[in-house]
Amino acid sequence: MSRNILFALWCTAQAALMSFSATADTLPPVAIAIHAGAGTMNRHDMDRQTEAQIRGVLLEAVQKGHSVLRLGGTSLDAVQAAVTHLEDSPFFNAGRGAVFNADGKNEMDASIMDGSGLQAGAVAGVHNIRNPILLARKVMTDSPHVMLMGEGALVFAREHEIEFAEDDYFYTEQRWEQLQKAKLQGSDKSAGANWQYPDRWMSTVGAVALDSHGNLAAATSTGGMTNKSYGRVGDSPIIGAGTYADNRSCAVSATGHGEYFIRATVARDICARMQFQGVSLQQAADAVVMGELVKMGGTGGIVSVDHKGNIALVFNTEGMYRASVNTAGDIQVAIYQDDDAVAEATP
Amino acid sequence: MSRNILFALWCTAQAALMSFSATADTLPPVAIAIHAGAGTMNRHDMDRQTEAQIRGVLLEAVQKGHSVLRLGGTSLDAVQAAVTHLEDSPFFNAGRGAVFNADGKNEMDASIMDGSGLQAGAVAGVHNIRNPILLARKVMTDSPHVMLMGEGALVFAREHEIEFAEDDYFYTEQRWEQLQKAKLQGSDKSAGANWQYPDRWMSTVGAVALDSHGNLAAATSTGGMTNKSYGRVGDSPIIGAGTYADNRSCAVSATGHGEYFIRATVARDICARMQFQGVSLQQAADAVVMGELVKMGGTGGIVSVDHKGNIALVFNTEGMYRASVNTAGDIQVAIYQDDDAVAEATP
Repeated sequence: MSRNILFALWCTAQAALMSFSATADTLPPVAIAIHAGAGTMNRHDMDRQTEAQIRGVLLEAVQKGHSVLRLGGTSLDAVQAAVTHLEDSPFFNAGRGAVFNADGKNEMDASIMDGSGLQAGAVAGVHNIRNPILLARKVMTDSPHVMLMGEGALVFAREHEIEFAEDDYFYTEQRWEQLQKAKLQGSDKSAGANWQYPDRWMSTVGAVALDSHGNLAAATSTGGMTNKSYGRVGDSPIIGAGTYADNRSCAVSATGHGEYFIRATVARDICARMQFQGVSLQQAADAVVMGELVKMGGTGGIVSVDHKGNIALVFNTEGMYRASVNTAGDIQVAIYQDDDAVAEATP
Repeated sequence: MSRNILFALWCTAQAALMSFSATADTLPPVAIAIHAGAGTMNRHDMDRQTEAQIRGVLLEAVQKGHSVLRLGGTSLDAVQAAVTHLEDSPFFNAGRGAVFNADGKNEMDASIMDGSGLQAGAVAGVHNIRNPILLARKVMTDSPHVMLMGEGALVFAREHEIEFAEDDYFYTEQRWEQLQKAKLQGSDKSAGANWQYPDRWMSTVGAVALDSHGNLAAATSTGGMTNKSYGRVGDSPIIGAGTYADNRSCAVSATGHGEYFIRATVARDICARMQFQGVSLQQAADAVVMGELVKMGGTGGIVSVDHKGNIALVFNTEGMYRASVNTAGDIQVAIYQDDDAVAEATP
């Protein structure tokens, strides 16, 4: 336990160092923001060890992405670095930590978008892919398509030597227990069954970044909903809903109750408001997440960065796992709504 | 041959009658527009019999939808009536006339959206469903989800008594020959293979409508691309790309090279420009289809209607199968770019 807290402190110290050197750089401004799910999080529900571990992984992920940007790398590589790190963690519902669907399988979705040319790649309903975000990127770069689903996406993955992992890689006791609990709470094998347990879909990971070339990118990856019906597609692989990036406005990655995010085309709507109304990123994100979504009853949040490097992290839930490094190099890692005050390692 | 031309003339006469009685109605204004694909159509490529038959089916479809509206029915029922009629025709790449994918199967997508509450339903990669648009609507009304794909969508279809059809229902000699030709032109079993034959994806059917209650709806259905890779998802089932409806702005259904339509979130973008820029439907549709899409290299078109009943039919290809009935009851059935002059049955 104390080792984990020490580790988190060490990460914080590292972050402070990195932050200092970042501001000393002569590169044009870069910025990055990540999330790892939004939901009913409060301080009383989580033990301190788990919280410290989660903050540690969030910090590592945002640092990995930021390192790419600081070295003059692309926003695409930065969001990919951050998201693969989150996918590799068992804490979050993506990649290794993906939840089990109603058939006891891990069924994952991911998407990525390049704001410079509006290139995009997405996969839906894939299994045994170690890092779905790498497959989404391969679809973007090496196929004539934007979106591949199910077995067809897996055939493409094999042809392009994407890494697969065995079932036990994705097995975490916590996720299996979640499935058993969800099954006890309600029989939901049918896609048409009741849908009463919102905490089941509150997780997804994602990242947005602005690189020193002035290019934006966004990436999102998810394991879907615990006990979800086979074949359900949420917002994460939908370009315009869970992911969007356009150099003319902003890059957005979303997490929340996907059905609402699809119907409101959340990611695209935030960019569209910036582009067509001339409002700020924060105003656009607030209007969609705290306005449109709340009116519809859709819960969740987004991380976003605009073409100037402004960052907006907006959620209408109790908490959202999030981290960011702004253009000044300030690092923030936060979970709860009133967490902004405890930003870490501000120089 | 002459029977078909006679039939088309009879339809035209019926349309004139309907048009006359529609204008005499006391209902608030209603309007509908449909499409059945866009592409490299020119008068020299098509024999007159086929052309007359196609115009006949377009007229029937738009009339079916318009009848629903004239009787005070909903825009959802109107677009469904029009799209099921187009799906039932062997001429268009949707439902019965769906093309064959690289595995010699019919793999279909569809989506529907209700502009009054932003409700939506979509299915991707389904086979042996007689009318995929009915399944999309069932997903909207009877499941907690917006989008279901593949086998999961078929399980849902069986549970909800959606009509299935045998393989031979979907077999049309023309589509089979197209597949053989496409296979000869290029081996494309891989999702990553070359993609050189744009005429393969130029077809999809769709409808948009405004009802007398002031509600908008949009629906789109497709059989995808001839010889397409198994698992490819185009824009038709993507809410925001191929289909969008919002009472605050407009309803849009698209047809064309789906990858570009996804990346540009075409349907949502047209609605967003109306909503946020305050431009007319025609201006918004022109900006997206003749501006954004052309810049990207994306070919295709859209049909759209706004909350006042204005209609915009815009395409950047040589032709688009289309038909509409405006608020004055004027009926138009057209194929080519210079076809507007030969609108049928204008009272």
